[in-house]
Amino acid sequence: MTQSEQFVGIGEHRRLVMSLAHEPAVVEMPLERCLGLVSAEPVAARLPVPPFTNSAMDGFAVRFQDVSTARPDAPVRLPVTGDIPAGSAAGDPVETGTARRIMTGARMPAGADSVVKVERTDHAPGVVDAPAEVRIFQAPELGANVRHRGEDLQIGDPVMEAGRLLDGACLAAAASVGYGSLAVHPAPRVGVISTGSELSDAGSDLAAGRIPDSNGILLAGLVSEAGAVVAQRARVPDDPARLREVVAGWDVDLVITAGGISAGAYEVVRQALPELTFHKVAQQPGGPQGAGIVGATPVVALPGNPVSVFVSFHVYARPLIAAMRGLAVPVESPTVRATAGAGWRSPAEKTQFMPIRWESGEGEGGRVVPAHRLGSKSHLVATLPLVEGLAVVPVGVEAVEAGDGLEVLMTRGEV
Amino acid sequence: MTQSEQFVGIGEHRRLVMSLAHEPAVVEMPLERCLGLVSAEPVAARLPVPPFTNSAMDGFAVRFQDVSTARPDAPVRLPVTGDIPAGSAAGDPVETGTARRIMTGARMPAGADSVVKVERTDHAPGVVDAPAEVRIFQAPELGANVRHRGEDLQIGDPVMEAGRLLDGACLAAAASVGYGSLAVHPAPRVGVISTGSELSDAGSDLAAGRIPDSNGILLAGLVSEAGAVVAQRARVPDDPARLREVVAGWDVDLVITAGGISAGAYEVVRQALPELTFHKVAQQPGGPQGAGIVGATPVVALPGNPVSVFVSFHVYARPLIAAMRGLAVPVESPTVRATAGAGWRSPAEKTQFMPIRWESGEGEGGRVVPAHRLGSKSHLVATLPLVEGLAVVPVGVEAVEAGDGLEVLMTRGEV
Repeated sequence: MTQSEQFVGIGEHRRLVMSLAHEPAVVEMPLERCLGLVSAEPVAARLPVPPFTNSAMDGFAVRFQDVSTARPDAPVRLPVTGDIPAGSAAGDPVETGTARRIMTGARMPAGADSVVKVERTDHAPGVVDAPAEVRIFQAPELGANVRHRGEDLQIGDPVMEAGRLLDGACLAAAASVGYGSLAVHPAPRVGVISTGSELSDAGSDLAAGRIPDSNGILLAGLVSEAGAVVAQRARVPDDPARLREVVAGWDVDLVITAGGISAGAYEVVRQALPELTFHKVAQQPGGPQGAGIVGATPVVALPGNPVSVFVSFHVYARPLIAAMRGLAVPVESPTVRATAGAGWRSPAEKTQFMPIRWESGEGEGGRVVPAHRLGSKSHLVATLPLVEGLAVVPVGVEAVEAGDGLEVLMTRGEV
Repeated sequence: MTQSEQFVGIGEHRRLVMSLAHEPAVVEMPLERCLGLVSAEPVAARLPVPPFTNSAMDGFAVRFQDVSTARPDAPVRLPVTGDIPAGSAAGDPVETGTARRIMTGARMPAGADSVVKVERTDHAPGVVDAPAEVRIFQAPELGANVRHRGEDLQIGDPVMEAGRLLDGACLAAAASVGYGSLAVHPAPRVGVISTGSELSDAGSDLAAGRIPDSNGILLAGLVSEAGAVVAQRARVPDDPARLREVVAGWDVDLVITAGGISAGAYEVVRQALPELTFHKVAQQPGGPQGAGIVGATPVVALPGNPVSVFVSFHVYARPLIAAMRGLAVPVESPTVRATAGAGWRSPAEKTQFMPIRWESGEGEGGRVVPAHRLGSKSHLVATLPLVEGLAVVPVGVEAVEAGDGLEVLMTRGEV
């Protein structure tokens, strides 16, 4: 008589969600616009690094044989045949018995094989005019302070693999080896929808039975933090025609909804988007889940309780967004190993995602405790700022004891 | 005769740089615009959570005494006096001997004290119309499936401290406790300048002695990753008047320059901005450093080699930006403890910041090796994508041996 609940496994729903990712597009973008995107092609050096042989110091370019005897009490005096600022050509070859002033990074002139740094001479550093002659107080080693063309990289040498998340360091490296633009995957454009007739604007006066919409702002934040663009946002009451109209009117790469997919009488996402697959996943919190394609647009339908949104986003939507960005995504979410600092109960027939905070040693090997005294209850949105990860308690476990080992899915600072 | 080099310590230069941070401004921003900013005031609940007593399940609101005998073989039959969708008022009190259909999150009606979930009744879940009567197959516990007003938080309870970096979870929590906007510190607006007559556009054909400008893109990326806004960018040749004009013309919170501060004859930043303090810090790479105020604008002047820019940014500019964002910044950069997986040499009179990658166990307790076979040489910009941190080798150490303990400054994924 009591209706049975049919569950699907987390792996099955994750496969369904990940199947929605199609091959990401490839576009050529100027370096200035690549920050935070993912490279679509390997980067190999188009220039040698350094691109020409240059001085590693401010000083004087010389022939070693002319200065090899220089000592503080027996300096060598050489006429200075000019000056090579950075960014200029090096001029004529340096003749035997002469020196040329040279700045850090400036092109080494032909003839010279070594650089005497300015501090080893009688020429004051920081003076603009080059002297007519220079006294050298200490012999350099042969080849000293010279950086040779290609000593770091030759043309064609690999610099970065494809699929690399491009930070400032990556973009600087690409610039230094001759790139002004890169082939990248554009950031996925995502539309987020919070559903429910009970939702009102955050901060507004609430009519009876209404609550502030926290899911819209939560989803928008999570999508941004996951490296996608929040291209559209909507809040939709329990009106299936309105929801269908919103989804149909958007030109986005992915739609993520919150709410309207469980067993109630007013399940707006279920009713509006019947082409999705809806099922109950054997997890707590966040059992009701949906996913599929509407028109040509992937849709991930998350449950409506904010902690369930948070958990489901990290378990399903974040890896989907990562794949759509062009990142390599493992079959299961990566976790770190930790120890329980306190005990709690878990439903034996479900995987529990317990919101935790680090009690000591944040990350691998650390100790975790539930973020809130009430545990994994799915409505405790106000405690989300305390959450630093999700302890994954597998099916079959009825209680976690203090001291037990745990896998923890990180929810902060991850790509 | 050889000119002596006077060094200042890392701590001294860091104090100079950190002294440039003035109290960050406070502005009220709608939640939608707060992502990634730092809260300026504590957040305390303006609403109780939940804001009203509501149902945790889809089912029927009842008086416990009416259904306490219900069993599968002896169900209790009750007339249904209406329906309470989420977001609506609850209607009249529930009379003795009646039930009212109720959805998850909907307001509990007066009179009722417990909710029977729909799966424990003869009413099919997911049907829109409420039935005229319902058979209940199993007695709930008294008070079952009811979430009480304020059971999570009472008005005035603390939710978040001031100085909190606001992610989606924080903003959702703020919304749920009654906020539509927050007092935040605006992101600092930073102008970045790469200097040197040798610099050309990335990807352009290079004239003799010219190199691509990688510092501009590096600084812009690092500033963005540090949570500031790149409000202005410029590349300036070795022309002090031009540099002064650029800095004077900008309305920004901070200027960061690269290059033009060492001992050469064409040190454009030294010449253009004489009100800054310039000195040599006892560190490798990145010895030459400058900082101060020009007009009313803080300026941090970094050396010009890209790896020196990278190192100096992380040691000095990133903490300054963090302080200007309103984050609490420790006196010294936080590090994690690691083990050297290989040996290398270090200059005994300087602190060395060796760019490393993780050989195993990224983070606390992991093993690190130099990111590049040539070590900490400051011109190896093309190897920056390999760098995952900076091993801090203190003054007095001439060589790191495999197996030695090390402190590592993290350069990725940090706030």
